[in-house]
Amino acid sequence: MSKKICVVVNSRANYGRIKSFMRAVQEHPELELQLIVGASALLFRFGNVIDNIRLDGFEPTAIVYSIVEGENLTTMAKSTGLGIIELASLFEQMQPDFVLTVADRFETLATAVAASYMNIPVVHTQGGEVSGSIDESVRHAITKLSHIHFPATEKARDILLRMGEDPNSVYVTGCPAMDILAESDLTLSPDLFEKNLGVGEVIDPGVPYVVVLQHPVTTEFGEGADQINHTLVAVNQLKMQAVWLWPNVDAGSDSISKQLRTFHEHNPSAPISFHRNFSVEDYARLINNAACVIGNSSSGIRECAFLGIPAVNIGSRQALRETGPNVLHAPYDSDEIYQTVQKQLQSERFKRSNLFGNGTAGKQMADVLAATSDVSLQKRLWYSDV
Amino acid sequence: MSKKICVVVNSRANYGRIKSFMRAVQEHPELELQLIVGASALLFRFGNVIDNIRLDGFEPTAIVYSIVEGENLTTMAKSTGLGIIELASLFEQMQPDFVLTVADRFETLATAVAASYMNIPVVHTQGGEVSGSIDESVRHAITKLSHIHFPATEKARDILLRMGEDPNSVYVTGCPAMDILAESDLTLSPDLFEKNLGVGEVIDPGVPYVVVLQHPVTTEFGEGADQINHTLVAVNQLKMQAVWLWPNVDAGSDSISKQLRTFHEHNPSAPISFHRNFSVEDYARLINNAACVIGNSSSGIRECAFLGIPAVNIGSRQALRETGPNVLHAPYDSDEIYQTVQKQLQSERFKRSNLFGNGTAGKQMADVLAATSDVSLQKRLWYSDV
Amino acid sequence: MSKKICVVVNSRANYGRIKSFMRAVQEHPELELQLIVGASALLFRFGNVIDNIRLDGFEPTAIVYSIVEGENLTTMAKSTGLGIIELASLFEQMQPDFVLTVADRFETLATAVAASYMNIPVVHTQGGEVSGSIDESVRHAITKLSHIHFPATEKARDILLRMGEDPNSVYVTGCPAMDILAESDLTLSPDLFEKNLGVGEVIDPGVPYVVVLQHPVTTEFGEGADQINHTLVAVNQLKMQAVWLWPNVDAGSDSISKQLRTFHEHNPSAPISFHRNFSVEDYARLINNAACVIGNSSSGIRECAFLGIPAVNIGSRQALRETGPNVLHAPYDSDEIYQTVQKQLQSERFKRSNLFGNGTAGKQMADVLAATSDVSLQKRLWYSDV
Amino acid sequence: MSKKICVVVNSRANYGRIKSFMRAVQEHPELELQLIVGASALLFRFGNVIDNIRLDGFEPTAIVYSIVEGENLTTMAKSTGLGIIELASLFEQMQPDFVLTVADRFETLATAVAASYMNIPVVHTQGGEVSGSIDESVRHAITKLSHIHFPATEKARDILLRMGEDPNSVYVTGCPAMDILAESDLTLSPDLFEKNLGVGEVIDPGVPYVVVLQHPVTTEFGEGADQINHTLVAVNQLKMQAVWLWPNVDAGSDSISKQLRTFHEHNPSAPISFHRNFSVEDYARLINNAACVIGNSSSGIRECAFLGIPAVNIGSRQALRETGPNVLHAPYDSDEIYQTVQKQLQSERFKRSNLFGNGTAGKQMADVLAATSDVSLQKRLWYSDV
Repeated sequence: MSKKICVVVNSRANYGRIKSFMRAVQEHPELELQLIVGASALLFRFGNVIDNIRLDGFEPTAIVYSIVEGENLTTMAKSTGLGIIELASLFEQMQPDFVLTVADRFETLATAVAASYMNIPVVHTQGGEVSGSIDESVRHAITKLSHIHFPATEKARDILLRMGEDPNSVYVTGCPAMDILAESDLTLSPDLFEKNLGVGEVIDPGVPYVVVLQHPVTTEFGEGADQINHTLVAVNQLKMQAVWLWPNVDAGSDSISKQLRTFHEHNPSAPISFHRNFSVEDYARLINNAACVIGNSSSGIRECAFLGIPAVNIGSRQALRETGPNVLHAPYDSDEIYQTVQKQLQSERFKRSNLFGNGTAGKQMADVLAATSDVSLQKRLWYSDV
Repeated sequence: MSKKICVVVNSRANYGRIKSFMRAVQEHPELELQLIVGASALLFRFGNVIDNIRLDGFEPTAIVYSIVEGENLTTMAKSTGLGIIELASLFEQMQPDFVLTVADRFETLATAVAASYMNIPVVHTQGGEVSGSIDESVRHAITKLSHIHFPATEKARDILLRMGEDPNSVYVTGCPAMDILAESDLTLSPDLFEKNLGVGEVIDPGVPYVVVLQHPVTTEFGEGADQINHTLVAVNQLKMQAVWLWPNVDAGSDSISKQLRTFHEHNPSAPISFHRNFSVEDYARLINNAACVIGNSSSGIRECAFLGIPAVNIGSRQALRETGPNVLHAPYDSDEIYQTVQKQLQSERFKRSNLFGNGTAGKQMADVLAATSDVSLQKRLWYSDV
Repeated sequence: MSKKICVVVNSRANYGRIKSFMRAVQEHPELELQLIVGASALLFRFGNVIDNIRLDGFEPTAIVYSIVEGENLTTMAKSTGLGIIELASLFEQMQPDFVLTVADRFETLATAVAASYMNIPVVHTQGGEVSGSIDESVRHAITKLSHIHFPATEKARDILLRMGEDPNSVYVTGCPAMDILAESDLTLSPDLFEKNLGVGEVIDPGVPYVVVLQHPVTTEFGEGADQINHTLVAVNQLKMQAVWLWPNVDAGSDSISKQLRTFHEHNPSAPISFHRNFSVEDYARLINNAACVIGNSSSGIRECAFLGIPAVNIGSRQALRETGPNVLHAPYDSDEIYQTVQKQLQSERFKRSNLFGNGTAGKQMADVLAATSDVSLQKRLWYSDV
Repeated sequence: MSKKICVVVNSRANYGRIKSFMRAVQEHPELELQLIVGASALLFRFGNVIDNIRLDGFEPTAIVYSIVEGENLTTMAKSTGLGIIELASLFEQMQPDFVLTVADRFETLATAVAASYMNIPVVHTQGGEVSGSIDESVRHAITKLSHIHFPATEKARDILLRMGEDPNSVYVTGCPAMDILAESDLTLSPDLFEKNLGVGEVIDPGVPYVVVLQHPVTTEFGEGADQINHTLVAVNQLKMQAVWLWPNVDAGSDSISKQLRTFHEHNPSAPISFHRNFSVEDYARLINNAACVIGNSSSGIRECAFLGIPAVNIGSRQALRETGPNVLHAPYDSDEIYQTVQKQLQSERFKRSNLFGNGTAGKQMADVLAATSDVSLQKRLWYSDV
């Protein structure tokens, strides 16, 4: 009988970073995919990621609405709680053999908590990385609840071991997000922006453009409006086309969105297009052909390393993260952001780096799970003297 | 203005292990106590711990019902989720400066998750200890969400540092449970058992007795009935008086309780008395005068070390825990349990050990919090090379 | 394509009153049964009703833990809320054509609220009856949310119409509980009480016995202990065998249970046996052969009317209810209860009454739903001048 | 000791319809106001109604985030459940003597359910009215849970009695929304639209304008985009200034909002301004000076009757409602909407009507509650023969 692998996809970022694994599970003769789609992946404001999932041929086993509206610190906590309640009921129905949870978001933690208490082995990707924001604490807490780890880098593996994880439970596979980059045709189709209309000016794919993603930093809640305004001023000053993605659902998102809407209302003819979402492959094409990726999304650091695309990382959200040579950092200061982007725009495309994976992660992960039959539910610290 | 210290008490075990700190906060001129009482501490089946709390002069700021009934793995997860939802609303109202969470239970995790996402510094006791069961994973996950650590032992401190916690955030204070033992008159009042009537025979305080506490092991869910029956057979065979506490609220509790009730129904005249709860001080007196403490409660290991009381630890729940010389281990086997208890009954009282504290933990902790004014919400791994 | 009829069973009382309908749906070529089992029907303390359901050959489509423990007014409200959250997710997955909800409990209301908001036609049994307690208000509120009504009596139908329900949506089918009484062999098997062991003395089926069920009255919360003690004194004074069922999960249940346990602990040899649950058919046999049914369960009034069994109804919970000649009322007073039971014990068995149905309700209801294809989701008051 | 009156405000519509009562409670020597603000009244997307509440000098006793994001039928049900859970905890803390709930929304139902089960007398406004949508069923269900009724009209009182409510519990006070209209200076300040900037063109107060509010009809879920487009076409064809309020939080709201945003994106210079919210008094000024109020908000029917402002009611949401002479109806058809608005624009201002109150409702209601001391928690149908 095949093993049931339950993947919980909760956001657009989640999906791109696990899609190739989902495919590998589907194609593996000994594995069966159970798919739960929840949280912001269900919401129109975040681009109806579930539509992309279905278009890709994955039919969710269940969907679960778990976002308590408010986009502040309190509702982020409450959404975590609601997610646990709902996921527990679903795991009870679905009886998976493994539950896989991606990275470091509150929904990721909800998944790990529910599965842990229910004696279902927890599989975790992106463990051992360091970043900033509350994600940093949450990622490591999830590690302590997880039974199998698929870190993306050797350095991440090292940190997992130092935190006391059993080396036999840690597999450096790279990140499945790189698989998409490796496998897809990343040339820019002339109609990319006509297919993916945003709010604002339509982008001309024949003219250089930058991509901007700046999410709230929950540990700096209340400063988001000020932070995004620095970026808005800098990007506006570039006088270049910009493809701007709305922020994710974290606490503080609404004040960032409000600034973006206000900017657009007052600058309707700025050459900026605001987008909710792209398909996983179109997003890969988008950044692969960008002149620079700006903001604080980890994709500037992770995916752009693989592609060799210049990135400017702003502020603290990714401040601690391991980076390739393609990344320059800037503080929340419009001048410095502007100068740093200008520097990157002068630069050549960087050499592609396999720092975060070589494009085979999904398949490797599926093979490990197929071969794993005796997970001990009882975790223990792996320090030799404990 | 005084700092608001919010303590969340969720079970009888929680309360005994934090009461002296609550007192120290109340008495500290620069601190204000906010008290939330929730989960099983509100339930009759677990002895209405809230009544003891009120009798001790603490008036809860709020109470919160958060146990989803069922006592299985699914409801344990769901109770965690409901706890997070409720605590987030309360923290929003109460705006504490610190939230303190005790040990490693699901309510403890709920507290840490809610406070973390709400940017309230999390203070954790009992971090860095090793045990067994899901508590083991959960304790370390809470560590990764916590900003200030009050481990009970040097060894626990060492583990916290190895897991990447900042040494400046770690204070070895001992466990506040020892404060109660150090400060109270622990002689056995002749009317202890008349004041605290259980179900079954009334215990004669003039005659030796053992104390039994055996909780479910959630990572071995489904085996609780068999496990407790071994203990019942062994204790019955002792032909001694026994004071037996009903198990806690963890998954599997009901099947243990069922065996205890069935045993009592069929052996109404066995010299065993079944109890829901004792006041913190009466519990200290109870174990201080016991011939042996049997089962898998950590109090056999922690409090009994301080008192020098012989203890027999059964099974895996505390298997990994640091112990003093007063502890012998036995597997789930009635013969071995019986033999091990007999061996302990021959033994002298052990030398008192300060392994888990010297009786001043509560006051030390209050002083640290009063002196702490600049907690960084942004945690980071403290490895020198990260 | 067959219509999907979702039945939500939440308690032992629910199940007996809908089982024959569930069977009729299963057997109907145009209907498909979706079964959700939740709330106290899943709990050991209430007799694991789900085991009876499975033994009867019904496999739940989903189960849902929704009882917030505490058995007080606050947790009753919270359990309603948790039930709505969970049921909404299940209805989303199951996409039923109709949702059937039984009677007047908080879980019944949760079912009606979730289905109403989700535009799923709500089918309600036992509407239009009058009783007492909060059930009285809740039953009528559910009526206002329901699209199809299956009242048990003509008088109940009349009340539904007077409250403004469309006569075309009201079908007097009788109560499915009567179907069980009509179809089953109700002779007392000699081993009934050996198969169904309770706590306390084993009942001798060859000797007369009374049956007692007394639930909390939530609108009189806080008076339950006093109320039950009157009944305990009266029943003890009878010096007859008594089969006593533990109370349901409503607010105040724990203080009733506590009195029962205390009584049993102090009167271990009283000829009373305390039971969590019987199968639907064994319960029918139990009351069919009882000398008298005592307490405040509606089965004393409804099922006992059909069977002609004398009943003594105590207090306000059913005070307003339509009754047959088999019922006498008594206040919360041990003497009056005792005297009233004595009077009933002198009486002959009463003539069987079809007041609450003739034993064909389940089949009638299934036929109505199979024939109904155009329910208007938009309800409107049916007063001729509105 | 004064009586604690807890008012739960959940939306902008709620607030305008209860504000004068809140003031009357505050000013009453025997009453104390407890204020809970929750649901969409806390959300930026709906205009941060809580800011208006605070500006008006009311400080919330507690706030409660209870909207599960998604704006569909499932999340509307789930938001109801979450609201019940949260409100139960708050009522437990606040121990009100009465809970007042406004009208017919899902949060209104949540309030009534929580208070009912907790034995807190429920006070209900707007009972007995007829409208359409799920609100129609929900309003009557709330009536069946309520202990004191403050209907706005004699006809509504008549319906309450016919549904079985006790005449002694019913007080026709009119609706408190009229109090605002009666007491405020409703002249149009020249800077109204500069103070209340919307998205789109700034409205010139010196030139005639229409006001549009069109909410989703949950019982017609899925048709909202089509419905709103008819209105957009009609209003655009008017070539008049239009002040358009975004829809409320009900299921289907997002598809209406999406059409509005798309229209604005493609018609940036249409003389339309889109608004989240106005203060209660500014909203009164807004409609008092409108040439016509268009859509399906009950304010077109209720407030506009008092003011004599022409209104065009579209579709089924208010189809059954009692109206004054100021209202004409139109189906979801752009031509008919256009023609009906044109007809109203030709019309004189209508005679002011006291159909929904004479402007003293809030004070009357406060006086009734102050004088009420013996509410029976046990409701019973008031039909003379039951």
